[in-house]
Amino acid sequence: MKQIGIGLLGFGTVGAGVVAGLHRNRELLSHRLGVELVVRRIADVDLERDRGVPVDRAILTRDARAVIQDPTVDIVVELIGGTGIARALVSEALQAGKPVVTANKKLLAEYGEELFGLAEQGQVDLAFGASVGGGIPIIRVLREGLIGNQVQRILGILNGTCNYILSRMESEGAAFDVVLRAAQEAGYAETDPALDIDGFDTAHKAVILSSLAYGFHVPLSAVTVEGIRGLSGMDVQYARELGYRIKLLAVIRRDGDEIEVRVHPTLVPMGHMLASVNQVFNAVMVQCDLTGDTLYYGRGAGRDPTASTVIGDLADVAQGLVSRQPRHRRGVPRANQTLRVRPLAEITSRYYVRLMVLDKPGSLGIFTAILGRHGVSISAVTQRAVLQEGGHVPVVVLTHAAREAELHAALAEIQAAGVLGEAPTRLRILD
Amino acid sequence: MKQIGIGLLGFGTVGAGVVAGLHRNRELLSHRLGVELVVRRIADVDLERDRGVPVDRAILTRDARAVIQDPTVDIVVELIGGTGIARALVSEALQAGKPVVTANKKLLAEYGEELFGLAEQGQVDLAFGASVGGGIPIIRVLREGLIGNQVQRILGILNGTCNYILSRMESEGAAFDVVLRAAQEAGYAETDPALDIDGFDTAHKAVILSSLAYGFHVPLSAVTVEGIRGLSGMDVQYARELGYRIKLLAVIRRDGDEIEVRVHPTLVPMGHMLASVNQVFNAVMVQCDLTGDTLYYGRGAGRDPTASTVIGDLADVAQGLVSRQPRHRRGVPRANQTLRVRPLAEITSRYYVRLMVLDKPGSLGIFTAILGRHGVSISAVTQRAVLQEGGHVPVVVLTHAAREAELHAALAEIQAAGVLGEAPTRLRILD
Repeated sequence: MKQIGIGLLGFGTVGAGVVAGLHRNRELLSHRLGVELVVRRIADVDLERDRGVPVDRAILTRDARAVIQDPTVDIVVELIGGTGIARALVSEALQAGKPVVTANKKLLAEYGEELFGLAEQGQVDLAFGASVGGGIPIIRVLREGLIGNQVQRILGILNGTCNYILSRMESEGAAFDVVLRAAQEAGYAETDPALDIDGFDTAHKAVILSSLAYGFHVPLSAVTVEGIRGLSGMDVQYARELGYRIKLLAVIRRDGDEIEVRVHPTLVPMGHMLASVNQVFNAVMVQCDLTGDTLYYGRGAGRDPTASTVIGDLADVAQGLVSRQPRHRRGVPRANQTLRVRPLAEITSRYYVRLMVLDKPGSLGIFTAILGRHGVSISAVTQRAVLQEGGHVPVVVLTHAAREAELHAALAEIQAAGVLGEAPTRLRILD
Repeated sequence: MKQIGIGLLGFGTVGAGVVAGLHRNRELLSHRLGVELVVRRIADVDLERDRGVPVDRAILTRDARAVIQDPTVDIVVELIGGTGIARALVSEALQAGKPVVTANKKLLAEYGEELFGLAEQGQVDLAFGASVGGGIPIIRVLREGLIGNQVQRILGILNGTCNYILSRMESEGAAFDVVLRAAQEAGYAETDPALDIDGFDTAHKAVILSSLAYGFHVPLSAVTVEGIRGLSGMDVQYARELGYRIKLLAVIRRDGDEIEVRVHPTLVPMGHMLASVNQVFNAVMVQCDLTGDTLYYGRGAGRDPTASTVIGDLADVAQGLVSRQPRHRRGVPRANQTLRVRPLAEITSRYYVRLMVLDKPGSLGIFTAILGRHGVSISAVTQRAVLQEGGHVPVVVLTHAAREAELHAALAEIQAAGVLGEAPTRLRILD
């Protein structure tokens, strides 16, 4: 059987998972694929640590360039992460005419245009299935399964750490900080959790998904990013009572010649499939003109799920090498699109607003009048019978669809009116 | 741009959807694929009816063989359905060296071995993405995305008609017959609903999924098939009170050298993702050794969702033609497997049993003793305080895991004991 040589750059958790998976299911995979995938070289700074996977120490090296240049290496797998050395090595491999498989979302979100350009120039594959959704084959689905469709909207729960925290806040009524610490202890959150909880990891993935959906590289700087840091347990509970679950969603949608790419905590109606996605699970719902809504759910991270998707990419690229036809050029971002990224101020949404209102006659009238003046129409108001310190009571307002700019202006005016005990909380509601 | 010619056999609902979809998204698809898909000939018995899609009448013919033999037709799409003429035409196309795209689950479930054999002989693609799951790209995911995985279990809600009926029975507390009639009036059920409600449509799909997962053609006759006809509204409501939703599930699992392939109404715990799949939607949950659980959800039928998947297949096959490398041979059933299909009597499951028990002292003791004697251990018993005609009360028993044969023997003995007003109801519970 024909062999295809793999060179791994980075022998951390996912790298070890790829080696273990290829070893474990070697026969099955060869049988299904008609080609044998063989790991020929592995580069890492640490050659000593035991990864608990079967590997011939002779193929280990500290020299990543030697792996790329090894003539027995047909495909380079980049699992180093980050945008430093990874960027240089991926560029070098592509320029050397070697196809690359990567799980590096940050690299693609920031330097995708440059790297896909190199891949296109060299007519060589750059596969990135594991960069979004871990074990969920969402990239493949968007590039291939839905190829005949116009993508209208993508909604994604793309960060397991955030989803885990939000699930526990809801089920236990616990505060954000408490749950974050527990998540860190359980290994579901990093010591420095900023990338996850401030929404940037989700934003990286949103950029990749929107590029695929719309053939257009969205600069990270154009993405609205609001994380879940400091989300109040009070809002999680009120949302629940109102029939919603709060999720950190990536929202990507097209409206005429504009697209929206945003990441923020969002109230999802309980009956919606995305509301059933709990704990560390991820899911992506894609709305298309032909298929309608489809949803893809699974583990968005972890050694083996991520390795599964890397191996799926390796299978494709290997098949492309055998047929001398790169497969993954499909759906690579093109520069000839003219879509405008809609600024946040111009988006339309329904809103959940919590105001800590001074408990005296007339307070309620003041802010409903202000909202009305800004054209923000109210669909429901609930005054919670819980007096907070300073004589303020929480009032929760659900609005009809309104423009972000109008809501923003209204809230600024309400705040200036002096009836609030703290700044208003504003969350968007999924339609 | 290179053109690939399509010949359609069957210009019914899905055929019209394929023509409409290719027309609507022609530019987008060509841009993404690098090849233009052009419908060159269409065969149907009815050349007159207006399908409401743009088509040059000159390409219509009643002669399906002429379409297959047309030298400008590179790919044949079979959308006739059934196993009569469709079987002959698919064989003929494959033997003529033309790749075939089909949505015909019955044909593949019954004659898959023969047809995949022809495809293999001729080194030509036989693509069947739309045969299972309509707009859900589950076939692609199993063949490609999960290629590096051992499939441990597949659970599928694969028939929209059944799921619609079950959803309405639960939400409205309505009887099966009433909801079936409503579904027929709404166009969600056929005038002759047997294929759907008796589980055979689901069984056809289960055969295709199990063949893909285990590289092994499972004869339809080896599949346990129990439909939802005559399911009692009482059981739907009791299940709900106990925290379950009844779904018609295809269950496909491997255990050592045996596989189970069965279709039956199943109690799904409310918190399970599959319990959230309601109305006409379908979903497939796949459990693998590397990815763990992943789930795929969407519209399992309908013109445009099915057309979307047919177009996805066309894109693959067209790309295979361009690279002279058939892509779809991957995952085609192989005959060299030695798995045994486990007979129903040998499966193990938890059960929901409803007994209409004579309301007199000792009745309860009789059947708990019989269950115990057969090694069926009870996890919960609820006696419903509703006296039915003839002095019987419904008693609902949930069992721990037990072998089907033991449960069957126990229920036969209970029935013989003369304390039941009607035959017991037995449903399986999803673990």
